[in-house]
Amino acid sequence: MMARAYFDYAAAAPLLPEARDAMVPFLGFEFGNPASLHRGGEVPRRAIETARELVAALINARPGEVVFESSASEANNHAVKGLALSRMDKGRHIIISAIEHASVLEPARSLERLGFEVTRLPVDREGRVGPDTLAAAIRPDTILVSVMHANYEVGVIQDIAALAQVAHEHKALFHSDGTAAVGRVPIDVVGLGVDAYSFPAQSIYGPKGAAALFVKRGVRPVSLIEGGFQENNRRAGTENVAAIAGFGAAARVAGSELETWSADLARLSRRVVAELPRRLDHVVLTGPAAGRLPGHASFCVEFVEGEAMLLSLDDEGIAAASGSSCTARTLKASHVLLALGLPHALAQSSLVLTLGWESTDAEVDYFLDKLPPIVQRLREMSPLYARHLRGEDPYATRPGETCDNEHTHEEEN
Amino acid sequence: MMARAYFDYAAAAPLLPEARDAMVPFLGFEFGNPASLHRGGEVPRRAIETARELVAALINARPGEVVFESSASEANNHAVKGLALSRMDKGRHIIISAIEHASVLEPARSLERLGFEVTRLPVDREGRVGPDTLAAAIRPDTILVSVMHANYEVGVIQDIAALAQVAHEHKALFHSDGTAAVGRVPIDVVGLGVDAYSFPAQSIYGPKGAAALFVKRGVRPVSLIEGGFQENNRRAGTENVAAIAGFGAAARVAGSELETWSADLARLSRRVVAELPRRLDHVVLTGPAAGRLPGHASFCVEFVEGEAMLLSLDDEGIAAASGSSCTARTLKASHVLLALGLPHALAQSSLVLTLGWESTDAEVDYFLDKLPPIVQRLREMSPLYARHLRGEDPYATRPGETCDNEHTHEEEN
Repeated sequence: MMARAYFDYAAAAPLLPEARDAMVPFLGFEFGNPASLHRGGEVPRRAIETARELVAALINARPGEVVFESSASEANNHAVKGLALSRMDKGRHIIISAIEHASVLEPARSLERLGFEVTRLPVDREGRVGPDTLAAAIRPDTILVSVMHANYEVGVIQDIAALAQVAHEHKALFHSDGTAAVGRVPIDVVGLGVDAYSFPAQSIYGPKGAAALFVKRGVRPVSLIEGGFQENNRRAGTENVAAIAGFGAAARVAGSELETWSADLARLSRRVVAELPRRLDHVVLTGPAAGRLPGHASFCVEFVEGEAMLLSLDDEGIAAASGSSCTARTLKASHVLLALGLPHALAQSSLVLTLGWESTDAEVDYFLDKLPPIVQRLREMSPLYARHLRGEDPYATRPGETCDNEHTHEEEN
Repeated sequence: MMARAYFDYAAAAPLLPEARDAMVPFLGFEFGNPASLHRGGEVPRRAIETARELVAALINARPGEVVFESSASEANNHAVKGLALSRMDKGRHIIISAIEHASVLEPARSLERLGFEVTRLPVDREGRVGPDTLAAAIRPDTILVSVMHANYEVGVIQDIAALAQVAHEHKALFHSDGTAAVGRVPIDVVGLGVDAYSFPAQSIYGPKGAAALFVKRGVRPVSLIEGGFQENNRRAGTENVAAIAGFGAAARVAGSELETWSADLARLSRRVVAELPRRLDHVVLTGPAAGRLPGHASFCVEFVEGEAMLLSLDDEGIAAASGSSCTARTLKASHVLLALGLPHALAQSSLVLTLGWESTDAEVDYFLDKLPPIVQRLREMSPLYARHLRGEDPYATRPGETCDNEHTHEEEN
């Protein structure tokens, strides 16, 4: 990859050596199917159960409450559609937040096509979902609430325990997408009070191709992938043994390293949040000023297109993002930033840095040196910046200008 | 694994070295997300598109018609539920065969719960689905037919082209589960005339965690995993780059080796089919006597429990199966053998051998030497065999005997 500074851990993280080592036997000698009765199944079967114990321990769950899936997107689909379908005799109203990942938003939309009603909760300027907002939206026929634990675009951490309590007071189930939170803050599914919780192995620097869906004992979502008896009849298909073994090894490392990781990440990202606005004007922090996700820094860099900034950073060997990895190639302004109330043009100047286990102060220094001249150069070419310098409102729409975003200007606030 | 003779390729296959080599960079340096705009996404993105071209070429599809998924079970779920749901305004009747894999049977059952009607086509004694049988079952409201290309328990290959033609004459879509056929016989999705076709990387000795769903251009199943834009909006979630790269490498090898593989496998399995009955009495071949799947041999070994046989073979370092890998641990008689009309007790004496790229004559010799004394020993302990020796019907049910199978005795014939 050759990046001199890698700040895109939300999109992809280098694999921990321990995770890679745990995978190797299952790409070679131990190729067996865990379902086999002969001895070829033994080691793969044990590897999966060991991984299940390690992943469960990381989030204070019981091993039997962990279902291995292929990605957090699959786990979110399974949780949202599976829990809604399992309770549709009790009601057909579900609640999500407006800043969920596409793998929660789209399943909710597809439930609407099946006759469910969906409420999308607004968030405040820092991205928070208030328990009172949830309480006001909840109804007697609400069967499911899904609010992500942390948001990877703006670094906000939700008060999941308080939100889950509101859901439970109204007999609704509570699911949370933990993709951004796991590996950054300690997770205790019992303390959070969630009924389901999703996250990928990548959150703790494990391999692609493995994820966990925690499902609280007694809760039974309808299966997404039906067929074989694997995963206690909750997810059919031959297990991806290598990836699951790698996930387990990563969970073991995360269990002992999380506190150090968390402290280091928080320190590094606080440096970026504090120092960038000192080196560059017209930089707007997105998300909360305090209590941010460790290892997360996000800004709107005014008068500059996010895409152009990323490409220029890339030329300097700096990997970063502008919005979520799943919308990275669509060139749309992020629904998350719009939900926070940012104007459309500002939302398109988004810069998101996500740090991880290999991040260093040297990378932060390099980034802080390289970004300001890049932005200066891009601003010199920017009609928005020219308007700003002329004292005009740079974000006023003019005749002939088009908007490639699906949101209309009326929605923008 | 230490097996001296490995005959369970249907459950798991040793990875081709070429596939493993192709995976390695993506577990290390090239950990990027294919969706990233910075250079970290480039090599992973190219690897996926190269794999897509290679997998498409293997089955005579266009690259854009190949969707990468995590397992054949997922691909079957996606095809059956996704195609049925996409056409529910045109009718709610689907047809499958009685010998499908659980990942087709269970989705069909769940469609029934949603108000669809499902017809399960009977098969003949050799496991074949007749085009006339299909024609007789098809109705104006039939929207989807799903019949597997080959069956891994009895080695039968279906005449998919003829069956697909019947479906299309009645404007129904046709899906086939190609898990057992791919890597054993040449596949041409155009010649077969299928609208959708599923198979895992494991069929061609690629890694677990990757599978392909061919979807003919213009056909649009409802997505199973919704969210991100990946796989041309057909399957959300960050791609398992390493597994997909391994799948592509395996497809490249399969493209050049298939003819040799096929000939070698056919010769080895013909040896087993011809020689075992000469060395052991009361052995009943299951599936067709001629035109079997290359590398496949299956029998009922009378008066012996399949499980006991497998464990004894395992003691001699021989890995084999008794029924499909997905029911391997459930101790139920196979629904496939029951559909062929085998009595329940006979169906429980099933032995299934599936060979693959590393199989040798020496392994076949070893197996042919070891099985007869094992069976002799087990028969000496068998009450069924004792009855047979006394000239009684060994399969007559007696008071006090229980049946742990879900099928009743009435259904057995």
